[in-house]
Amino acid sequence: MSELPLILVTNDDGIFSPGISYLAKIASTFGRVVVVAPDKPQSGMGHAITINSTLRIQKTSHHNAEKEFACSGTPVDCVKMAVNHILKKRPDLVLSGINHGSNSSINVIYSGTMSAAIEGALEGTPSIGFSLCDYSIEADFAQAGKFIAGIIAESLKNKLPKGVCLNVNIPKLKEEDIKGIKVVRQARANWVERFEERKDPYGREYYWLTGEFVNFEPESNDTDEWALANGYISVVPTQSDLTAHQVLTTLKHFETL
Amino acid sequence: MSELPLILVTNDDGIFSPGISYLAKIASTFGRVVVVAPDKPQSGMGHAITINSTLRIQKTSHHNAEKEFACSGTPVDCVKMAVNHILKKRPDLVLSGINHGSNSSINVIYSGTMSAAIEGALEGTPSIGFSLCDYSIEADFAQAGKFIAGIIAESLKNKLPKGVCLNVNIPKLKEEDIKGIKVVRQARANWVERFEERKDPYGREYYWLTGEFVNFEPESNDTDEWALANGYISVVPTQSDLTAHQVLTTLKHFETL
Repeated sequence: MSELPLILVTNDDGIFSPGISYLAKIASTFGRVVVVAPDKPQSGMGHAITINSTLRIQKTSHHNAEKEFACSGTPVDCVKMAVNHILKKRPDLVLSGINHGSNSSINVIYSGTMSAAIEGALEGTPSIGFSLCDYSIEADFAQAGKFIAGIIAESLKNKLPKGVCLNVNIPKLKEEDIKGIKVVRQARANWVERFEERKDPYGREYYWLTGEFVNFEPESNDTDEWALANGYISVVPTQSDLTAHQVLTTLKHFETL
Repeated sequence: MSELPLILVTNDDGIFSPGISYLAKIASTFGRVVVVAPDKPQSGMGHAITINSTLRIQKTSHHNAEKEFACSGTPVDCVKMAVNHILKKRPDLVLSGINHGSNSSINVIYSGTMSAAIEGALEGTPSIGFSLCDYSIEADFAQAGKFIAGIIAESLKNKLPKGVCLNVNIPKLKEEDIKGIKVVRQARANWVERFEERKDPYGREYYWLTGEFVNFEPESNDTDEWALANGYISVVPTQSDLTAHQVLTTLKHFETL
């Protein structure tokens, strides 16, 4: 039996996207690779799971992986399906991405890529989500290849803290211009949305969600936004406890209602 | 112009569910009510948003609200659509629910109900998600009516901390058996999943996601699970910073790669 680590690779752009091909290729230099990824783009799906409908999986063979399945569900469904149904043993690492576009700051909660990594950590497996700040289908993932490999190697060698995954965002820069890695926190930010109204061929309104990203703390130098703006790869340790611990005491007055 | 607070009501079970009817009714005793909710059930949608597809809204009139729209998108889409397109002014309060079923503990990250409340808080509005631990369509929301009204009144009187919303879960108990309210943290827990395999009429496999909830810390008496199991309504202050702040220093070694 092989001693090589078992690595589950998934994403949210779909099993045919260039980003997951590149990630599966890097992963294969570290161990046995199993790919379970959505059969279609699932960007912006957050931590959605499929409970009102059924799921399908289909064998594919696009990534030279040990096993590959396209799944009809969300990125989180893919991780659950892989861990609880497809894999015979628990994976040693879950890798998600490489996403075409940033998942820094508040984007983490909308991101299917990061939700898959968070789900991996919930399932007890060290997990990393990778995103490149370049939406182009022709984005050059190789520019950050040595850093991606380094982060994977380090995570396999020294296990990540339990329940914590990494949110890795890579600036759109040439290899020689990437200054290194910063371990930082999620910047406080939000999207200012606009709904673009259009008319369908039958005269009825429909809408496209669009928006502009606003960093609420551009001056802070310990955030992922700062790191990316300054030529660094940002690594945010990420977890799934949403409790606002700092106000637990402040809100005790609700107990007197 | 009215001085009454403007209250946005949404949910994830869909605009026709009994839970949102009850919540809109209570809300109307406090101010002007606008309902923007999904046109179909959206349970388990987490923080999903619609970016690969278009959105529609349709006027409805089921809740005697000032304005009501059924939206083709997710609960988070509903909040974004309401705040950025439908409402002329920022709401004073966002209420989500009442969900048919628990959103305590780790369920918060899968929950469309709570994601709508988190989105409300992100948009800068005090927000509360309500869930009743009873999946039945005939669940009796009135048993907790005075507590729900009390929590709404208190949140209107003393604004919630910025960026923080409340995750309120109500045990399935008669009014006289509810012991009160506990302000607590999200319990560490997870789902142990099983994929139920079936065959369609054409002989092809499909799957239903099922699972069992496991509380990792049943002995802790400061969690939402403990509160609910002991007859209390749980109130968890909830926020959207997923940074695992406690390990930022531990992981600094990644910066040397």
